[in-house]
Amino acid sequence: MILQLQTSQHTQFLDITQQVQQAITELKLTQGAVLLFVRHTTAALTINENADPDVLQDLETIFQRLVPWQNNYHHNEGNSAAHMKSSLLGASEIIPVKNGALALGTWQGIYLCEFDGPRTRQVLVQPLSATS
Amino acid sequence: MILQLQTSQHTQFLDITQQVQQAITELKLTQGAVLLFVRHTTAALTINENADPDVLQDLETIFQRLVPWQNNYHHNEGNSAAHMKSSLLGASEIIPVKNGALALGTWQGIYLCEFDGPRTRQVLVQPLSATS
Amino acid sequence: MILQLQTSQHTQFLDITQQVQQAITELKLTQGAVLLFVRHTTAALTINENADPDVLQDLETIFQRLVPWQNNYHHNEGNSAAHMKSSLLGASEIIPVKNGALALGTWQGIYLCEFDGPRTRQVLVQPLSATS
Repeated sequence: MILQLQTSQHTQFLDITQQVQQAITELKLTQGAVLLFVRHTTAALTINENADPDVLQDLETIFQRLVPWQNNYHHNEGNSAAHMKSSLLGASEIIPVKNGALALGTWQGIYLCEFDGPRTRQVLVQPLSATS
Repeated sequence: MILQLQTSQHTQFLDITQQVQQAITELKLTQGAVLLFVRHTTAALTINENADPDVLQDLETIFQRLVPWQNNYHHNEGNSAAHMKSSLLGASEIIPVKNGALALGTWQGIYLCEFDGPRTRQVLVQPLSATS
Repeated sequence: MILQLQTSQHTQFLDITQQVQQAITELKLTQGAVLLFVRHTTAALTINENADPDVLQDLETIFQRLVPWQNNYHHNEGNSAAHMKSSLLGASEIIPVKNGALALGTWQGIYLCEFDGPRTRQVLVQPLSATS
């Protein structure tokens, strides 16, 4: 299954926890794990705080300090910072599934991280089977 | 299976390789892979050097330089740096298993990374099955 | 299956996409996912742009700025920067497989990241099974 996701800002942490839970329900995945894989090189996936949006804003600020948008890069599309952030957070997340539900901690949400938007992004949802 | 782990310092790399090996033995996992998943947003998992503890101390130092504890963050709990480090290292590790043993390299150990401790942390251990 | 890979530079992003595709063909993996796991602590795996090599050069430059090779580290082998980069990118990647092919996005390639070469590196290729 592929989730089609529309981001609305240049840099954005988009909460996709509900869409992922809905996907595993539709896929009838009850035990095991789900692999999420973003098919782009200027976006990423991460798991972080789902309660206070200030956390996500702080993450964006820290990223901007670590990897400034302009810094004499060679890539002529000018978005090397987005590529770097993509590699630092990674293209995938794998989350255990128990009794049909994501086995996330209380404060964990799943985020599509947009680093060069707004764009339409694809996240592949692949169930993985557990040993009995 | 859930590992309950107690950290003792504010920032700490806790070697959990033995506990993970013991868990897959108890789970009778012989082939495939094991998914480790930390259910918190101010901790993480990583794989790194298991021999010289100076490596882990250097990792802590580098992290402190990259993401200082105080830096005009907005999140009112004051631990945004811990959230950032958590996303940079990630909530999960997946390790191949061969003949009932973790297929780690000679110098690889598995670490629970505490970034806002001391706390009790939960790491979910989920066996994944290989294709025949 | 283990891929034996020879790097040729101290720091290098080596495109291994074709070797991984060939491995899953040989392993007759048609559906599910493939786990790649590097068995070293001064190398890593990442997925990023496969078209313009300037992107990879920019990633190396950004990494060098973030984690300088020399910076009063304690580890007496002197390669703590390589260990840090290894943890930041991570030892593994998991890629969905559809109809016997890596389900990568158009611009995604798989890279072995060498941070303290040149060396011979091992990447374990472990197929994971999907639920039906």
